[in-house]
Amino acid sequence: MTDENNIAQTLERVRQILETQSPSDAARVLLELHPADQAELFNELDEKQRDLLLPELDIASMADLLEELEDDEVLDAVDILSNERLADVLDEMEPDEAADLLGDLPAEQVTEVLSQMEDADEVLPLLGYTDESAGGLMTTWYIALRPRTTVAQALQFLRDVNPNIEVPYYLYVIDREKRLKGVVGLRQLVISAPETKIETIADPEVIFISSQEDQEEAARLMTRYDLTSLPVVDHELRLVGVITHDDIIDVLEDEATEDIYRLANMSDADLEPESPIREQIKGRLPWMYVNTLTALFASWVVTHFKSLIAEVAILAAFQSVVAGLGGNAGSQNVAMMVRAMALGKAEPKMIWKAFRKQVMVGILQGLAVGIVVGIFVALWQRNPVLGLILGLAMVFNMTLAGAIGTLIPFVLRYLGQDPAIASTILVTAATDSLGFFIFLGLATLFLNNLR
Amino acid sequence: MTDENNIAQTLERVRQILETQSPSDAARVLLELHPADQAELFNELDEKQRDLLLPELDIASMADLLEELEDDEVLDAVDILSNERLADVLDEMEPDEAADLLGDLPAEQVTEVLSQMEDADEVLPLLGYTDESAGGLMTTWYIALRPRTTVAQALQFLRDVNPNIEVPYYLYVIDREKRLKGVVGLRQLVISAPETKIETIADPEVIFISSQEDQEEAARLMTRYDLTSLPVVDHELRLVGVITHDDIIDVLEDEATEDIYRLANMSDADLEPESPIREQIKGRLPWMYVNTLTALFASWVVTHFKSLIAEVAILAAFQSVVAGLGGNAGSQNVAMMVRAMALGKAEPKMIWKAFRKQVMVGILQGLAVGIVVGIFVALWQRNPVLGLILGLAMVFNMTLAGAIGTLIPFVLRYLGQDPAIASTILVTAATDSLGFFIFLGLATLFLNNLR
Repeated sequence: MTDENNIAQTLERVRQILETQSPSDAARVLLELHPADQAELFNELDEKQRDLLLPELDIASMADLLEELEDDEVLDAVDILSNERLADVLDEMEPDEAADLLGDLPAEQVTEVLSQMEDADEVLPLLGYTDESAGGLMTTWYIALRPRTTVAQALQFLRDVNPNIEVPYYLYVIDREKRLKGVVGLRQLVISAPETKIETIADPEVIFISSQEDQEEAARLMTRYDLTSLPVVDHELRLVGVITHDDIIDVLEDEATEDIYRLANMSDADLEPESPIREQIKGRLPWMYVNTLTALFASWVVTHFKSLIAEVAILAAFQSVVAGLGGNAGSQNVAMMVRAMALGKAEPKMIWKAFRKQVMVGILQGLAVGIVVGIFVALWQRNPVLGLILGLAMVFNMTLAGAIGTLIPFVLRYLGQDPAIASTILVTAATDSLGFFIFLGLATLFLNNLR
Repeated sequence: MTDENNIAQTLERVRQILETQSPSDAARVLLELHPADQAELFNELDEKQRDLLLPELDIASMADLLEELEDDEVLDAVDILSNERLADVLDEMEPDEAADLLGDLPAEQVTEVLSQMEDADEVLPLLGYTDESAGGLMTTWYIALRPRTTVAQALQFLRDVNPNIEVPYYLYVIDREKRLKGVVGLRQLVISAPETKIETIADPEVIFISSQEDQEEAARLMTRYDLTSLPVVDHELRLVGVITHDDIIDVLEDEATEDIYRLANMSDADLEPESPIREQIKGRLPWMYVNTLTALFASWVVTHFKSLIAEVAILAAFQSVVAGLGGNAGSQNVAMMVRAMALGKAEPKMIWKAFRKQVMVGILQGLAVGIVVGIFVALWQRNPVLGLILGLAMVFNMTLAGAIGTLIPFVLRYLGQDPAIASTILVTAATDSLGFFIFLGLATLFLNNLR
C-alpha cells in the first residue's frame, strides 16, 4: 500500500484535466483518493487550481477534505465559499473540526454562518473551550443511552443515527441529569440478549476527564489505559463530549515537537521550515538574545584572564574544548531528563538517585575524554602541563554538567515551568562560564610550569 | 479521575498488609486497581514484596499485570515462576505481548515453556519477526471471516470466541488462501440484516502493511488514515496479524525519544536517568568522542591565530560568542528540519525554498544580534573596531548556520541516514570552526585599527 506514487500520478492527472477539461472532471479524479491523500494533493496545487477545484466537490466530500487540511490551509480554501455554502459544509463536518474552523474565522462571519447552519447546536457547545483543553479536543458526535434502554433498542438506535458518527464502538450510559454512569462496548452489546437492559452490561468504572483539563492529561489517560475514546464531563459530571484516538495522536506529536523545539531554544512549536520569516524571527530571536546574555557573561569571565592569555596565547585555542564538550554532556543530561518527565518516568522522589548516577556518568565521561584529549594535546603542543590542566578541567566541567543538567529540569518543573524551556540555555551558560573559569583558573595556578 | 493519589494510597495499604497479614489479602487490594495502575504500584514495591505478591495473583490477573510492565520489569518478575506456571500465564496474555516476553528469555527456556503452552500456535508465528518490523508489532488475536459468511453467523462467531480478543471492532475478510480481501466494521455488521453476506457489506479498499515493513511505516499509515487497527500481510498478501492503536502510540513515543536523543548526541533511545552506568556510557561516550574531534579541529583553527591573540588577547574573550551563537542558530534550524521530516512535512522538492528562507532568517537574526552585541562590546571595551568585526562575524556565521543547518538534514536523509543523527555535531563543527576563522580572520585584516 504505497500512497506517494499514487498521489503523484493523480496529481498529474488532476493538473492536466484542469488545464484541458472541466474542473468537475478533475474533482471526480481527486475523489478516487482517500481524503487524507486528497488533502496532500490539494496542497500541491496552486491557489488558482484550488479555487477552481473546491467548488466542484459535493458538500460531503468538501467536508471530508477540509477535515484533513491544516488550520491555515482550511482558512485559505474556504475563502471562496459563500457563507451559505460554508454553513452546509460545516453541518457535514465532525463537530470538533467544524468548531476549530469557526474558531479561526472573523467574529461577524461566525455569527452569520452559525445562523445558517442546521446543526449549530452540535458545534456551539464546543466553541467555548480553549484549544489546549480536553473540551477543545472533544466531539459532540457520540452515542449516549439511558440505563433502562434494552440492547434491542440500542441496536435500533445505532441503525437510525448518523452513520458518520466518529465513536460508534463505545456507547455511554447517562442518567436523567446527563451524568456519566457507565460505558458499554459495541461488542458486548452484540453478544447480549436483545431484552437485556444496558445497565446490566455497562461497566460503571468508566475513565473520564473534565472538560477544563489540559489536553495533555487527556493524552496521558488514553495512552496509559489504552483507550480509543475518552468521555469528557463538565463540573457536574455531565457527559458533554468524547475525545477520539486520532485527536490524541495529534496531541502527542505536538508535545514532542514542543519539547524538541524548546530544547533547541525555539518558543513557537508551529514553526516549519517554510513558515513566514516574520514568524520565524518571532519564535527564535528572543531566545537568541537570552543566549547572547549568557555568552557575554562567559566572555566577561574570560576578560579577567586577559593578561594570562596575552602571555600563553595557546590557551585561547583550547578553552572552547572544555566549554563545548561540557555543554554537550549537559545537553545529553537535559534531553534525557526532559524526555523522562514527558513520559512520566521521572518522579521527584527519584531525583537524588538520578543525580548521583549522572554525576558518576559525568566523572567517567570526563575521565574518558579528558585523558585522551590531555595526552593528545600534550604531545601535539609538546606541553605536558597544558595537557594536564586541559584534561583536569574537562573532568571537572563534565562532572558539573552531569550535576547541573540533571538538576535544572527538576528545578524548572518544581517552579511550575516546562522543564524543556530554557534548560539547555541554563546548562550551557553554566558549562561555558565555569568551563572557561576552571580551565583558565588552573592555567593561572600552573602558569610557571606552562610557559 | 485522578489515579496518582489512588495508587499512592493503595500502595500504602498493600505494603501494610504484606507486613502484617497474608500476601493473598494484599493481592486482593492490588486487583482493585486498573492493570496499568497495578503495574505502577508493583514497580514501587521492593523485590521481596514483589516476589511475595505475584504468586498470589490468579493466572488471568497475572497476565494483565505483566502486559503492562516494561520488558525488563517483566523479566525480573517472572523469575520466580515455574515454567509450567509461566506457560499458563503466556497462554492468557495477548500473543504479541507473550511473544515479546518469550523473545527476552534464554533459548532453552523458550523451548521448554512453548512445549507446555496450550496456545503456542498463536505465539509461534510472531517469534520470527524483528522488534522494529510491522510483524513484530502485530497480534494474532483478530477475527477473520470468509466472504460468504452471513451477518448472523459472524455475530454468533463473535459470541463464541475469546472475549479478550484485542481487535473486535474490525473484522477482516479473507479468501480460501487467507489473502486479505476486505474489512467490515462491527457497526456495519450490527446494522445489517442477519442473512446479508459479509462480502456485500465489506469494504474491499482495505489499507494494510507488509509484515517486513518498518514499524514506523505502520505508525505513519495509522496516523495518516486515522486507523484504530491495521492488518498485516505476508509476501503473498495473506493476512498474518493486526496492529492495534495502542502499539502505535508506543512507536510514536519511541520515535520522538529517538529524535530528541539523537539531536542531543545520544545513540541509545532506551537510556533513562536511572539506566545502569555502563549503558549510559555506551550510549553517550561514542558521540562525545566524535564531538571531541570536531572541537579539536576548531582548536586547530585557532592555533593559527596564536600570535594575533598574543597581541590582542581580548579577542579570546569574544571568539566564543561568535561560535556559540552560530551553533545555537544552527541547532534551531536542525531541530526544525528534523521535526518537519519526522512529520512528513519536508519533501526533497522544497529544499531550495526552505534554504532561501532559512538563509534570510540567518541574515536577519545575525543582524539583530550582531548589531546589539557589536555596539555593546564597542562601548564596554571602548574599542569600536572590535565591536565592528564581532558584529560582522556574527552576521556571517549565523547566515552560514542557517544554510548549513538546513542542508545537512537533507543531505543525511539523501544518504539514507536518519537526519537527526549527527546533524547537530556537523552543524556545530561548522559554526565553531568557521566562527573562529571568520572572527579571527577579520581581526587579522583590521589588526592595525584594533591595537
